[in-house]
Amino acid sequence: MLKVRLITVGKLKEQYLRDACAEYAKRIGRFASLQIIELDESRLSDKPSRSEIDKALAKEADAILRACEGYLIALCIEGKQRTSEEFSAMIEEIGVRGQGTVSFVIGSSYGLSDQVKSRAAAKFSMSKLTFPHQLARVMLLEQIYRAFMIAGGGQYHK
Amino acid sequence: MLKVRLITVGKLKEQYLRDACAEYAKRIGRFASLQIIELDESRLSDKPSRSEIDKALAKEADAILRACEGYLIALCIEGKQRTSEEFSAMIEEIGVRGQGTVSFVIGSSYGLSDQVKSRAAAKFSMSKLTFPHQLARVMLLEQIYRAFMIAGGGQYHK
Repeated sequence: MLKVRLITVGKLKEQYLRDACAEYAKRIGRFASLQIIELDESRLSDKPSRSEIDKALAKEADAILRACEGYLIALCIEGKQRTSEEFSAMIEEIGVRGQGTVSFVIGSSYGLSDQVKSRAAAKFSMSKLTFPHQLARVMLLEQIYRAFMIAGGGQYHK
Repeated sequence: MLKVRLITVGKLKEQYLRDACAEYAKRIGRFASLQIIELDESRLSDKPSRSEIDKALAKEADAILRACEGYLIALCIEGKQRTSEEFSAMIEEIGVRGQGTVSFVIGSSYGLSDQVKSRAAAKFSMSKLTFPHQLARVMLLEQIYRAFMIAGGGQYHK
């Protein structure tokens, strides 16, 4: 069974986001061993300077790189966009190649440091739009579930 | 105050989606008069034929076109993708041109009929990925809220 590790920064603040993630996590559990890792979010001042942000991202990067395993996919707006079918094929291929684990990383509200992006095997963008990283977590889990449904020929994806 | 009308098909089934939409609707209410219209979803068989789907979409199209007002933006995967800043500028321009109302339409899980798409002033895609239309509603409301925050120079959008 493929291991899917989702590395995130910060805890989900809203109950509705926690419920949404729990629902998709449960569904993914039928196809893969899913592990969600919530790393500590750095505390920043109200109007942080660029250097304050970079310092926080670097600290988060250390924790992210320690947490990732296997094939690392970084979520970032400049990453490659894929259709749900292409995304599904990508995950299937990782499983077929026998990598065992695919790690996804979603950064904090300031994104990811270049250190994480350059370590990633693939950069993936879900949209040209900017979404809150907490909502992005729901969106990504839904896509991972959809990917398994597409691969399995289920009726979920039309 | 700009009127924003969101036309959707089907009721939100999950409490977490209702809560998420309610939260963003409340936030949008500070900037615009928001109205969410939930049209009836056609009932289809388990494995509907193309003609059954087309019939359902045509029926939904009639109701959608009766419900829309002002500048109509249809959400569809083949629409134009925009960044959050471009999306914000688009909504601001509609307000400046004095159209008074902008209507967004999100179809059912089978999408929208060509009749609706050809009536729309703009076609907008949030992603190359396929999302459930119910989750798309949350995503769109978040972007509308973000659009107002960008236009107002708020700190929400980084």
